[in-house]
Amino acid sequence: MERIEIGHGSGGKLTRDLIEGLFLKYFKSPELHSLQDATYLPGFEKIAMTTDSFVVQPIFFPGGDIGKLSVAGTVNDLTVSGSVPKFISVSFIIEEGFPISDLERIVSSISKTAESAGVKIVTGDTKVVEKGKCDGIYINTTGIGDVKRELSPKFVKPGDVVIVTGFIGDHGISISLSREEFEVETEIKSDCAPLNSLLVPLFDVPGLRFMRDPTRGGLATVLVELSETSGLGVRIYEDRIPVRDEVRFICDMLGYDPLYLANEGKAVVVVDRKDADRTLEILKSHPLGKNSQVIGEVTEEKGVVLVTSVGGMRRLELLEEDPLPRIC
Amino acid sequence: MERIEIGHGSGGKLTRDLIEGLFLKYFKSPELHSLQDATYLPGFEKIAMTTDSFVVQPIFFPGGDIGKLSVAGTVNDLTVSGSVPKFISVSFIIEEGFPISDLERIVSSISKTAESAGVKIVTGDTKVVEKGKCDGIYINTTGIGDVKRELSPKFVKPGDVVIVTGFIGDHGISISLSREEFEVETEIKSDCAPLNSLLVPLFDVPGLRFMRDPTRGGLATVLVELSETSGLGVRIYEDRIPVRDEVRFICDMLGYDPLYLANEGKAVVVVDRKDADRTLEILKSHPLGKNSQVIGEVTEEKGVVLVTSVGGMRRLELLEEDPLPRIC
Repeated sequence: MERIEIGHGSGGKLTRDLIEGLFLKYFKSPELHSLQDATYLPGFEKIAMTTDSFVVQPIFFPGGDIGKLSVAGTVNDLTVSGSVPKFISVSFIIEEGFPISDLERIVSSISKTAESAGVKIVTGDTKVVEKGKCDGIYINTTGIGDVKRELSPKFVKPGDVVIVTGFIGDHGISISLSREEFEVETEIKSDCAPLNSLLVPLFDVPGLRFMRDPTRGGLATVLVELSETSGLGVRIYEDRIPVRDEVRFICDMLGYDPLYLANEGKAVVVVDRKDADRTLEILKSHPLGKNSQVIGEVTEEKGVVLVTSVGGMRRLELLEEDPLPRIC
Repeated sequence: MERIEIGHGSGGKLTRDLIEGLFLKYFKSPELHSLQDATYLPGFEKIAMTTDSFVVQPIFFPGGDIGKLSVAGTVNDLTVSGSVPKFISVSFIIEEGFPISDLERIVSSISKTAESAGVKIVTGDTKVVEKGKCDGIYINTTGIGDVKRELSPKFVKPGDVVIVTGFIGDHGISISLSREEFEVETEIKSDCAPLNSLLVPLFDVPGLRFMRDPTRGGLATVLVELSETSGLGVRIYEDRIPVRDEVRFICDMLGYDPLYLANEGKAVVVVDRKDADRTLEILKSHPLGKNSQVIGEVTEEKGVVLVTSVGGMRRLELLEEDPLPRIC
């Protein structure tokens, strides 16, 4: 088989061939191999569930692909909720005529990413639609986690510190540059990565209040939502926010604001000030957190304020419209 | 707002408007209202998980719509696995320009169906893609159930009876007729319905072995898969299989085989022969099961055989290609 045909979504023989010839080759968990429509999971006390559909364009980009992204995204959503990611479902909508070789690359990437994150893919689904009714492939992942620590904007207090776990904007810039032809040669790759090995150790920090991965809408959106939900304010300092020079340069060129660009391998972490050093130490001991930085603090008064490098104040708001749709 | 715009998938203000203005209007569970990326669920001992993406065309059809279908489908997958459906995630991929009024109809239908099935929608996601990159709307639902009874093709034994819970083929015919212009006037509606209230009472029947909802690929596909997985055979009798005269007539006209047509509100139930009467009694006492019928039995020799009404034998196989794609 070279290309996906309508019959691959029929539930009949061609579907079976696709499952046995391709998906099961990469997805090794016995739960999935039972091929039941629903999957038994060993029980635990308190579980978390999250879902995301991925429609990123292009599906292959520097630093990742839609498969890696779809696992990392769900793993990260579970992790920042204070849970250890355990199980994941994967559901495909595929366009007729989609190359099997591309699908194999994606499935392999899903498998690798899940393995590296220690999550099991336990159930799945495939639908095929006609040409022109999809953009190659869309993927939904839904995840289940074992809740270890309840985190919430409601736990945040004035004086808490706000940490970001590394350079922001890489994913957004990488996607943007891979869509268009630019004169610029760049080394920027998407930061797409599962963050559970970085962040789960923080569950033992007593002063940990809240975490969120700044994906669609970027760092600014996470902070605005944190402010709205907590009823408190956030003040961040421009010169402390880690942004690569190259990203800053390309943002200037294309008219993007790095604060609103998507990240797929970063977290915003809010902790009690007295646990800030310990938190930074844990984060910096991990390769994905070595550029972690305290970028600001929680304040009494609602709203998010950016203190610019020249000492000005700028209020951050929610975006009206995404400058770069379909980044995840 | 009249139509979906690209910004509705941005994660910013327009997304918020859509969530607060429309989704939260219908989805009432507090877990969803927390608006976290991942959701805490109260724990239970053993859980089941299932996922499905829905790409049905048309999205509104006699007897249902893509919203009702997406909840019923996942509820049914959990139920036939022997679990009580508890929690569901809903994830949308929506085409730019999709009418908000249609989305509202769908969201309302999701809400009503979930409520009638007693499942809570606990997390969700929305992506918007450009015109021509989707066919209006696609929906993924992923469900979590509380496992009460482990059911499996492996538990099936020769001599067990095979029951179908009512008329087959209604969904397939309804979808087919709503796609094209026919001279025939018909009353046939999709059978789309959550089956947990019908089937959960069977969990107390000691001889219950296996259940499956015959959706894509129909009754024949379920039985062929049962035979392959169990290593046993199935013999069914054409004159015992409930098919409406109208469905049979339209099948003859269009060249469909009702055994391969999708159902969205029926189950195949395999039970120990000595519990057949009790099972039928339970099923027939429910409006969705009043036309339940024993259609055959499990045999020693692998393969599925249809005994025709004139006494001939026909071997049933998996479909090579779906005669009617995108029925769910």
